[in-house]
Amino acid sequence: MKTSQSSLTTANAIWEQLSQLDRKTLAQLFAADEARVSKMSQRLEFDLGEAGPMGIFLDWSKTHLGDGELSAFEELAKVMGFDAAREALFSGGIVNPTEGRPATHGAMRGSGTEADVEEADQLLRRMGMLVEAIHQGALGEVKHLIHIGIGGSALGPQLAVDALTRDLALVDVHVVSNIDGLALEQAFAACDPETTLIAVASKTFTTTETMTNATSALKWLSDNKVDDPSGRVIALTASPEKAVEWGVDETRVLPFPESVGGRYSLWSSIGFPLALAVGMEEFTAFLAGAQGIDTHFREAEGRANGPLLAAFGDLYYSRLRGCQTRAVFAYDERLGLFPDYLQQLEMESNGKSVTSSGEPVDGPTASITWGGVGTDAQHAVFQLLHQGTHLIPVDFIASIAPGDELDPAHHKALLANCFAQGAALMAGGNMSADGKDPARGFAGDRPSATILVDDLDAATLGALIAFHEHRVFAGAVLMGINPFDQFGVELGKKMAKEVESGEGDFDASTKALMEAAGLG
Amino acid sequence: MKTSQSSLTTANAIWEQLSQLDRKTLAQLFAADEARVSKMSQRLEFDLGEAGPMGIFLDWSKTHLGDGELSAFEELAKVMGFDAAREALFSGGIVNPTEGRPATHGAMRGSGTEADVEEADQLLRRMGMLVEAIHQGALGEVKHLIHIGIGGSALGPQLAVDALTRDLALVDVHVVSNIDGLALEQAFAACDPETTLIAVASKTFTTTETMTNATSALKWLSDNKVDDPSGRVIALTASPEKAVEWGVDETRVLPFPESVGGRYSLWSSIGFPLALAVGMEEFTAFLAGAQGIDTHFREAEGRANGPLLAAFGDLYYSRLRGCQTRAVFAYDERLGLFPDYLQQLEMESNGKSVTSSGEPVDGPTASITWGGVGTDAQHAVFQLLHQGTHLIPVDFIASIAPGDELDPAHHKALLANCFAQGAALMAGGNMSADGKDPARGFAGDRPSATILVDDLDAATLGALIAFHEHRVFAGAVLMGINPFDQFGVELGKKMAKEVESGEGDFDASTKALMEAAGLG
Repeated sequence: MKTSQSSLTTANAIWEQLSQLDRKTLAQLFAADEARVSKMSQRLEFDLGEAGPMGIFLDWSKTHLGDGELSAFEELAKVMGFDAAREALFSGGIVNPTEGRPATHGAMRGSGTEADVEEADQLLRRMGMLVEAIHQGALGEVKHLIHIGIGGSALGPQLAVDALTRDLALVDVHVVSNIDGLALEQAFAACDPETTLIAVASKTFTTTETMTNATSALKWLSDNKVDDPSGRVIALTASPEKAVEWGVDETRVLPFPESVGGRYSLWSSIGFPLALAVGMEEFTAFLAGAQGIDTHFREAEGRANGPLLAAFGDLYYSRLRGCQTRAVFAYDERLGLFPDYLQQLEMESNGKSVTSSGEPVDGPTASITWGGVGTDAQHAVFQLLHQGTHLIPVDFIASIAPGDELDPAHHKALLANCFAQGAALMAGGNMSADGKDPARGFAGDRPSATILVDDLDAATLGALIAFHEHRVFAGAVLMGINPFDQFGVELGKKMAKEVESGEGDFDASTKALMEAAGLG
Repeated sequence: MKTSQSSLTTANAIWEQLSQLDRKTLAQLFAADEARVSKMSQRLEFDLGEAGPMGIFLDWSKTHLGDGELSAFEELAKVMGFDAAREALFSGGIVNPTEGRPATHGAMRGSGTEADVEEADQLLRRMGMLVEAIHQGALGEVKHLIHIGIGGSALGPQLAVDALTRDLALVDVHVVSNIDGLALEQAFAACDPETTLIAVASKTFTTTETMTNATSALKWLSDNKVDDPSGRVIALTASPEKAVEWGVDETRVLPFPESVGGRYSLWSSIGFPLALAVGMEEFTAFLAGAQGIDTHFREAEGRANGPLLAAFGDLYYSRLRGCQTRAVFAYDERLGLFPDYLQQLEMESNGKSVTSSGEPVDGPTASITWGGVGTDAQHAVFQLLHQGTHLIPVDFIASIAPGDELDPAHHKALLANCFAQGAALMAGGNMSADGKDPARGFAGDRPSATILVDDLDAATLGALIAFHEHRVFAGAVLMGINPFDQFGVELGKKMAKEVESGEGDFDASTKALMEAAGLG
């Protein structure tokens, strides 16, 4: 999936055309078209079989995308080869050219080539058997799982377990990622070594943080007189031979394919903590929800394609309105980690400076994704959203059905706040008695999009994640970059080893810091 | 503290001059001055009496501030009346002109007028007596505290309790802020109603989220047959009469002054959960650390003033380099919430569009503060920091002494990674074998600052927070804005009530969302 120079030249002409379009305010866009909401929003409905029905409402009407912009972006998608790239994604094409690999995370949920899907099924069946066996007591009484992984091997399991185990967790999961020993100590304090399993999740099975933490976790088990500590370890990895070398018995190694990227790996054995905590039936529903979105993404064309439309909006704000960030606010405690998850997914995928053919990019790539949880964030950062000097496109995410069983006043107020914020950002106004105090004035015309799910469950969580995976992919295609490598982390890794060993050529500031800390 | 139009005109000339200065790369700045590190870094040492010694190393050398910029910013500080504003802050001057109030959070830690400090002492003694009484059993056995508050009444206690109670908490604290009932349910699940106290924290004692949650918490106590549920409530508020009206006995109302802003209130009775969890001695150390920084900020001049120098850097990047964000990475699990805390402190304070005299501002105000925890963030978002298209000034924060007792390899690697990231961002390079693969190239010349504390304890946490409070204040003075109001939250609040009641004039998108959710 390399983009030719001629495509990029044509693309530049479209960008030029986009920049020339008359800019309308949101109020003007609404006033000019009574049907705007029905054109710019849609309800996706899915029948997921055993996982039940699923409904998602997508509203992009409060963005500045008008007909002119949408047509131009649809043209851009054509020029940048969106159809072919999408086809390549699902048919095992080399969509990751710098590493010469396909990206087969879709296959884990049934969206891929026959061979990839079959391999994925086999791997998931293997995981399912281990999960079942553990639930049935094959490894003795298991109350706790300490899941050790970092980045793509941590954020996904952490998000999913946090979102889906509020009511009931079959096993109590603690995700440990940081090399800071405090992280592991906190998990130790919450677990009984006798009834604790350790999952070690690393694509390469060489990640420094993870292997250091894994070693300390084994020591904790043996310090606590647990028989056969390595017998308590499950390995989740694309390098099963390394896991076996490290001492994990082959029966407890759950492999996933090399072509599944770290930040796209929750669907694979990296999802083991979720499967163990909620059971395979729920895990299967999680995959089914994602597959629903895969189908929509594969079939819907142009602006009717939800993730593609979202990518149009992202690029509109980053490339035409100078927005360096986008913000995501989940009006749901269960999605507290969703902004963090998206931060990784979007920034690690599309935070690049060269096209997939190695040319410098023509404009900004991934925005900085940040956000938080509503209503909390209203009392922390919304001041700047409403009255600051930066234009920030906002996404709101909420569930129509409540997740709690308290007085329905709680959930009603939660949703009312969510909708009111989008309305207020757009409307603006002045809150002073005479309407003239500038300190109480709101410029308005600030954009937002809203994703409303009927009910937040395993299937919709899968759908929400898959939606954003495809949004990121679509954005990458439109920019001509490769979303599937991450060479940007390599230099820091190399220099960390140098600082740790004291052997290297350091700048004067780094030397001073090393000296202050007694390193090197 | 209003800024005159003539000051703003002179300031514009200085900004013009700043924009004309030759831009040097970090490498050029280091090459041109062997003493750069000693000039741009400093070690602050404090003798805090009973709280012991405290040491903090501040390194701003890896920013693009050169002599020319520093002199111009010092001149800007003069023109914008920094000395007088700082004096006003500590002497009860009206530094919050739109609300006609001083800002006396400094007095809570002994930095203010005699009268303010005396009032603060009295209030803190009152809090201390209640804390002591609870520890001694005056309210029966107390194992849990559910602290209900939002924004400024939640983030501070949450950060401080999380940072300082890893080893031992006298009482197990759960902070609940969101109106989403899931937040409260999670706290209920972790607490035994018989041994739980409820703290209700709200400056006005009318905050919707907090009062709704407080009511549900009382219901939970009475549903669980706890005698006299309101007898289990402690109120933390600047409106004590409202708390009494609501049913809290006056003996359990801990007031704080109206002139202490929400996001600056952790030093006051809003810090009650921290005091209850760690004891008054630690709480006093927390205040002493902050007072140490107050003294530095009051006495140091120009670039030698740590918070002022940091503000110079912040404005340099936001106004001269077009950076819309700044990122903060704490290389310490205990500071996991610190980026969130700063996000509120900085964005709510300085996310404004008008000067303190009500004129439109001349340039961008507060940046969007975002960040995370190292090393985790290295595997999630550092790809974009290193290879993305946005320039992002980064702050690193770490503690020389470890907080954990595992193999010292953990903490050594943690610090090595922290320093290596700053070094790598600046150095750049190419990680391919032939040094030519553009996908493996790093532009370098990306700035960072580092704050290194000798040991993260109550005093240094206080110092870190106070440092940032003053950094925000200094930035506000340099921009001529009022950091102490937050009218930007009002419009959303009003519209939330309208959406909830269904009475209002809504745009078509909001109507569609309300309909989809069955509201209104």
